[in-house]
Amino acid sequence: MRKILIIHGPNLNLLGQREPNIYGNVNLSEINDNLQAMAKTLGVEIKIVQSNHEGEIVETIHQAMNWADYLIINPAAYTHTSVAIRDAIAGVKIPTIEVHLSNIYSREDFRQKSFIAPVSVGSINGFGELSYYLALEAAAKMKQ
Amino acid sequence: MRKILIIHGPNLNLLGQREPNIYGNVNLSEINDNLQAMAKTLGVEIKIVQSNHEGEIVETIHQAMNWADYLIINPAAYTHTSVAIRDAIAGVKIPTIEVHLSNIYSREDFRQKSFIAPVSVGSINGFGELSYYLALEAAAKMKQ
Amino acid sequence: MRKILIIHGPNLNLLGQREPNIYGNVNLSEINDNLQAMAKTLGVEIKIVQSNHEGEIVETIHQAMNWADYLIINPAAYTHTSVAIRDAIAGVKIPTIEVHLSNIYSREDFRQKSFIAPVSVGSINGFGELSYYLALEAAAKMKQ
Amino acid sequence: MRKILIIHGPNLNLLGQREPNIYGNVNLSEINDNLQAMAKTLGVEIKIVQSNHEGEIVETIHQAMNWADYLIINPAAYTHTSVAIRDAIAGVKIPTIEVHLSNIYSREDFRQKSFIAPVSVGSINGFGELSYYLALEAAAKMKQ
Amino acid sequence: MRKILIIHGPNLNLLGQREPNIYGNVNLSEINDNLQAMAKTLGVEIKIVQSNHEGEIVETIHQAMNWADYLIINPAAYTHTSVAIRDAIAGVKIPTIEVHLSNIYSREDFRQKSFIAPVSVGSINGFGELSYYLALEAAAKMKQ
Amino acid sequence: MRKILIIHGPNLNLLGQREPNIYGNVNLSEINDNLQAMAKTLGVEIKIVQSNHEGEIVETIHQAMNWADYLIINPAAYTHTSVAIRDAIAGVKIPTIEVHLSNIYSREDFRQKSFIAPVSVGSINGFGELSYYLALEAAAKMKQ
Amino acid sequence: MRKILIIHGPNLNLLGQREPNIYGNVNLSEINDNLQAMAKTLGVEIKIVQSNHEGEIVETIHQAMNWADYLIINPAAYTHTSVAIRDAIAGVKIPTIEVHLSNIYSREDFRQKSFIAPVSVGSINGFGELSYYLALEAAAKMKQ
Amino acid sequence: MRKILIIHGPNLNLLGQREPNIYGNVNLSEINDNLQAMAKTLGVEIKIVQSNHEGEIVETIHQAMNWADYLIINPAAYTHTSVAIRDAIAGVKIPTIEVHLSNIYSREDFRQKSFIAPVSVGSINGFGELSYYLALEAAAKMKQ
Amino acid sequence: MRKILIIHGPNLNLLGQREPNIYGNVNLSEINDNLQAMAKTLGVEIKIVQSNHEGEIVETIHQAMNWADYLIINPAAYTHTSVAIRDAIAGVKIPTIEVHLSNIYSREDFRQKSFIAPVSVGSINGFGELSYYLALEAAAKMKQ
Amino acid sequence: MRKILIIHGPNLNLLGQREPNIYGNVNLSEINDNLQAMAKTLGVEIKIVQSNHEGEIVETIHQAMNWADYLIINPAAYTHTSVAIRDAIAGVKIPTIEVHLSNIYSREDFRQKSFIAPVSVGSINGFGELSYYLALEAAAKMKQ
Amino acid sequence: MRKILIIHGPNLNLLGQREPNIYGNVNLSEINDNLQAMAKTLGVEIKIVQSNHEGEIVETIHQAMNWADYLIINPAAYTHTSVAIRDAIAGVKIPTIEVHLSNIYSREDFRQKSFIAPVSVGSINGFGELSYYLALEAAAKMKQ
Amino acid sequence: MRKILIIHGPNLNLLGQREPNIYGNVNLSEINDNLQAMAKTLGVEIKIVQSNHEGEIVETIHQAMNWADYLIINPAAYTHTSVAIRDAIAGVKIPTIEVHLSNIYSREDFRQKSFIAPVSVGSINGFGELSYYLALEAAAKMKQ
Repeated sequence: MRKILIIHGPNLNLLGQREPNIYGNVNLSEINDNLQAMAKTLGVEIKIVQSNHEGEIVETIHQAMNWADYLIINPAAYTHTSVAIRDAIAGVKIPTIEVHLSNIYSREDFRQKSFIAPVSVGSINGFGELSYYLALEAAAKMKQ
Repeated sequence: MRKILIIHGPNLNLLGQREPNIYGNVNLSEINDNLQAMAKTLGVEIKIVQSNHEGEIVETIHQAMNWADYLIINPAAYTHTSVAIRDAIAGVKIPTIEVHLSNIYSREDFRQKSFIAPVSVGSINGFGELSYYLALEAAAKMKQ
Repeated sequence: MRKILIIHGPNLNLLGQREPNIYGNVNLSEINDNLQAMAKTLGVEIKIVQSNHEGEIVETIHQAMNWADYLIINPAAYTHTSVAIRDAIAGVKIPTIEVHLSNIYSREDFRQKSFIAPVSVGSINGFGELSYYLALEAAAKMKQ
Repeated sequence: MRKILIIHGPNLNLLGQREPNIYGNVNLSEINDNLQAMAKTLGVEIKIVQSNHEGEIVETIHQAMNWADYLIINPAAYTHTSVAIRDAIAGVKIPTIEVHLSNIYSREDFRQKSFIAPVSVGSINGFGELSYYLALEAAAKMKQ
Repeated sequence: MRKILIIHGPNLNLLGQREPNIYGNVNLSEINDNLQAMAKTLGVEIKIVQSNHEGEIVETIHQAMNWADYLIINPAAYTHTSVAIRDAIAGVKIPTIEVHLSNIYSREDFRQKSFIAPVSVGSINGFGELSYYLALEAAAKMKQ
Repeated sequence: MRKILIIHGPNLNLLGQREPNIYGNVNLSEINDNLQAMAKTLGVEIKIVQSNHEGEIVETIHQAMNWADYLIINPAAYTHTSVAIRDAIAGVKIPTIEVHLSNIYSREDFRQKSFIAPVSVGSINGFGELSYYLALEAAAKMKQ
Repeated sequence: MRKILIIHGPNLNLLGQREPNIYGNVNLSEINDNLQAMAKTLGVEIKIVQSNHEGEIVETIHQAMNWADYLIINPAAYTHTSVAIRDAIAGVKIPTIEVHLSNIYSREDFRQKSFIAPVSVGSINGFGELSYYLALEAAAKMKQ
Repeated sequence: MRKILIIHGPNLNLLGQREPNIYGNVNLSEINDNLQAMAKTLGVEIKIVQSNHEGEIVETIHQAMNWADYLIINPAAYTHTSVAIRDAIAGVKIPTIEVHLSNIYSREDFRQKSFIAPVSVGSINGFGELSYYLALEAAAKMKQ
Repeated sequence: MRKILIIHGPNLNLLGQREPNIYGNVNLSEINDNLQAMAKTLGVEIKIVQSNHEGEIVETIHQAMNWADYLIINPAAYTHTSVAIRDAIAGVKIPTIEVHLSNIYSREDFRQKSFIAPVSVGSINGFGELSYYLALEAAAKMKQ
Repeated sequence: MRKILIIHGPNLNLLGQREPNIYGNVNLSEINDNLQAMAKTLGVEIKIVQSNHEGEIVETIHQAMNWADYLIINPAAYTHTSVAIRDAIAGVKIPTIEVHLSNIYSREDFRQKSFIAPVSVGSINGFGELSYYLALEAAAKMKQ
Repeated sequence: MRKILIIHGPNLNLLGQREPNIYGNVNLSEINDNLQAMAKTLGVEIKIVQSNHEGEIVETIHQAMNWADYLIINPAAYTHTSVAIRDAIAGVKIPTIEVHLSNIYSREDFRQKSFIAPVSVGSINGFGELSYYLALEAAAKMKQ
Repeated sequence: MRKILIIHGPNLNLLGQREPNIYGNVNLSEINDNLQAMAKTLGVEIKIVQSNHEGEIVETIHQAMNWADYLIINPAAYTHTSVAIRDAIAGVKIPTIEVHLSNIYSREDFRQKSFIAPVSVGSINGFGELSYYLALEAAAKMKQ
């Protein structure tokens, strides 16, 4: 049974309240419920963590080393500024999928650079909450 | 019944022969067969086109104006060089999903700029053939 | 009698349907009719071509070598990406006027670089369909 | 009867004496006479001002606020350096046409950036004195 | 009664000990006392927080969502590196004033880029402790 | 009694008429009246000058050398283009406060570079007319 | 018997007519005749193609996959703009020699970047028609 | 007896498990033991801290203000992104040595910029665990 | 008898009062007296103008067209910002020498770009008042 | 009888020992012998020099002024750093061919700028020792 | 017995006389004596060379090929400009340590790029003469 | 009696033969004779050195440390590439004048950066041989 860790980065706890024209109206616990339901259907085990702290995300990734087969991360703001999270992912060598609710590549210039992309298997951007569900499906179905 | 046009850009006809360490071993007709099968399951209608010609892709997009509800495109090399395809997508106003077999954001610098991203709903990169299947699912399930 | 070739670049066949807030509501055949009418008044002979293919535009320019005294071109998206069209214009040595419906210098950054400008006599940008009529007048009235 | 203010920027009083290979041999009063004659034909009223002073041009634009329906400006050297003239145009909200005798986009790099273009309706570059006459025609014929 | 949250960013707890030629000799508790006294005079209610942790500042801003009418923040070093704090401010939609003791625009190049400025109402830089008092006055007096 | 010179740069005479969504509806003479009233309250003497001419502003600063203890300047467009005003401020060595009605650091890229900031004590940006009043208070209260 | 495909890119059909100060007076069929004659002497078999169409060049390269041992290409304008041709060469894995009549590294800046160079064995630039003959010799004599 | 604080930055707790081709096989507690042993030999007192949190590192540096004569820091990922740590070092004015296991100047571009270098006495890069031992020796032997 | 116009740019009227560590203690009228005395010795006629206004300097250059054989200019701040003065010099075609009291190439980055240098015969920088005297000697002795 | 000087730049004496994956296994004296043999066949006279000293190469080029009709140079590392060698070639006006064993345009960024290319007739890159033999043939056969 | 070559680059013969605030007061022969003494203690054999000539340093590195197990180099000014020395080090494949007396990464921008770093094992910067002693220790103790 | 060392950099021995349109027809020994004659008149002692070797120029500067009161250098090509000569000048602390025959600031981009300018008192560019004579006069007359 494949084990998948899902990390929601900074400010995602605001989901549903924050800039709905960009991020939609759904809140994070609804997404998490949907992910849990999907996990059952797909036959995978998932853990979900949200943190606003770069260091905490780094350590969550470290702790996944002995448990997770796959990592799904929405690094949010840290996408563009955190070498520490990048190094953590590269260090634990767990295959990783980068997820964004919005299409970061059509927003401000500084959002078009991802420190996470080069250490990820792939990325899914712009589909709102569906980004997560597609990522979970990918994590469940990828061959390695 | 949602109608979806899928466009494979330049060099994708080589799939299965070309740089397998980057693009995998599956060939394009196998992918197309899988997409057709998925379309039936999802209850959508799809058309699939491959072209190595920028102008032809532009005109394929124009012709989709009266048929397609959604566009899935792997612009391949034209991702990074074609303003004409970008303008075509912006012109026909069909919601568009950008797909890449490889994670373009972890390759050469010039591949990290997409002219297509800013006129797309979202993008799926790096999952090999699975990128296409996730995109089809997204095109079928997106609310608008 | 001065002979003038007018080339409409990619996506201009969509005129009237595409992004009217940027390009206006008139369609291309109306513009062409107006140009033909103007040509009679000005006492010049014109040919009009539209193409979405970079290579076809290159060859249209080649073929003009033995006919046209002046070239009016709206290179549209190829303005920003085509060295081939630039080299064709430089090669045939027909004096050339660059035309744009919108003011490209007030749009996205990538639209502010024209490969065509340095091989053109001059340019007319931003007046909608009037850009073409002013260009035709210029082509008819320029001393050389 | 449409009222149009025409502003000649710095060094244009030298016209006919200065770098004829770039700017031609006609002098400024001849151009002004031609513009006045054209204005009659077109049924518009024009005022013409030349100034070498950035501040004076700013104030000329301010004063046009209660008179002019259209502004034609050849900002010359100030094209590339004057935010003050740009802000004046944006402030008075008179539709503005940018004119250049030479094709600025085929000259030195620093001449390829215009502070004026983004606050103009459109621009006409490279046709020598004809640039002005085309601009006047445009100002007379534009719908708004 | 207007409610205002004041956040002191990283290293500001060192105030009075650290680089007095840049930041002056006053310490943070003296500033806080002065701010409390001013608040009474101005008839506003304030809360003051100091944190060296990016994630903590993000969460402090989240918690302000149900209390504060205005936010005053000296993001210090995070001014130049934190997209997370920027996103938090944009997310909670509380009008925000950026404060700096020193004039960041006259220091090292990297200090001349602020991630916070584009999501702020305005900024006050370079007046030492007076920067805070002016900001509090602004927060109290701004119409909205 | 501290003496303070206040300089309004180019286009500020348009205030109240110009781009109210950016600059507000108040006009310059109302601001000046408010500044005079405040000056009395604060026990300082002020002079106010508005000019659209770079050279005039330079000379106004020179003349302040024998009178003013403090300089408040809203350099407006010249913020981004005038080395001459910068050199004048550096030359007369009068402590200077830079003021902007709008938050220049959240506008176009070219407005994010200030030639004046590095020779100023500090700056106040984005509070509309309140920017001036805060600056006057700062000029009155700064220790040196 | 080594098989070599020679591709002439866009505008090379104009050879002998176009900018002789840069490209010389010989025309393309004369060069082709010389190449055929040399091929006999060198004991190699050659095919020669000229195209102005990026997509056609891409497909010509694809078709070479089952025939050619070596590829000689003068990508002309596409040197600087075509990722599609680059990907085609990388995809078919035929060793490739890049040829230019002129010394592209002494011309305009934009001609000094080659998308083709990084996927080529080597390049020969600036010797006019001799560039082709040296390339053919190289293709015939290279060990692998 | 000189007192030296040694700080290990983010992800260094993974040492021995993480990317051994870059960082070697030794783990952090072995390095710490060796450092303690060396400290005795050198006659200095050391404290060692590891943290993945930027804010915690900032505060560790603050607390060192009353104890440490020297600071040795391997800022790891924060080298390239943390102005806060830089400001903390500059604030406490303890002479600081920057240490890296790998030669950061031969890795990715973004690793070649150090925010810490300009506020450090010196740096030692690329010698694996030996980097630390050399740094300790330097901290013990430096004259001031 | 060779006629030479000498122009002192903005802020040079402050000489002797302004930043003496950079510009020295001599004032402008002393320099002018020395230049007049030198002119007699060298057998040349000189006129000297100082202006803080870009437009005035432009017009001073225009008026020199019928009188001056040589132009010596210290453009001061306008060195780095004035295309108008550059165009005036290029327009009147009077051979021009650029003079600076300080060595502009060892000061701030923005002072290291001169719009005037490319239209000047040569430049003399960094010798204080001696810069002017050397320039006068050069203007008197240059063959053409 | 055409006289050709061949210069091998720095580190080329190591050939055969150094980075064989990039430069091949042949050593320099073998190449020189082959060049001498070829020279006989081609009916040209050659001299060959190797130097690791920039100044020596400069002087070797000076001395060629009275002897050589053609210059073949592999500037190796000096390609990217020596303006002095460029100026020497431009000074002696001997037509020059630039040679590289490896394809410099597919290596590190800094190797993709050649100071020598703009003063050369043409260049041959990437064919290993064959680069030299093709260059000799070119030098022998070029018309001028 | 490990053999180590130590190279002092240009201007280091001035040590003790030159910019003592940056480089300290010790002279080079004192450093060399200390290195010889240390070598004995460490049980290694060293040779020391100083040269101001890029070509001589290149050749010194070549000659080390048959003798040295390790190379310590302070490339001084050549750090930032010499591709030739870089290529020499890469060519001889002797493991190399880069040494700097000052912390080059806290000095002028151009000193923050090292051509040598990417071909070195590691670097030691900023410790004055101690930099050399630490480097010798490293060279003696490194495992390979 | 002031002692002045004059250094001619690389390729200046070619003077009179090399690119006369840029450098004029006079040769170096004529210039040197004129300098010697001027030295007598000015009552100064001069030594003149020409070298094409960067290292030799560095050492010539070192040796000047005990003799020269002033240094005049035309670094020619090394102006733009030599940090070693810059460091030598900074090291010996002899006041230095930079001389160029041509106006380097109106030539290619790479010639517009001088490593020497920031360590020089001043520079004289563009007056041909007169540049040297003015420099000698400056060196004789400067107060310190």
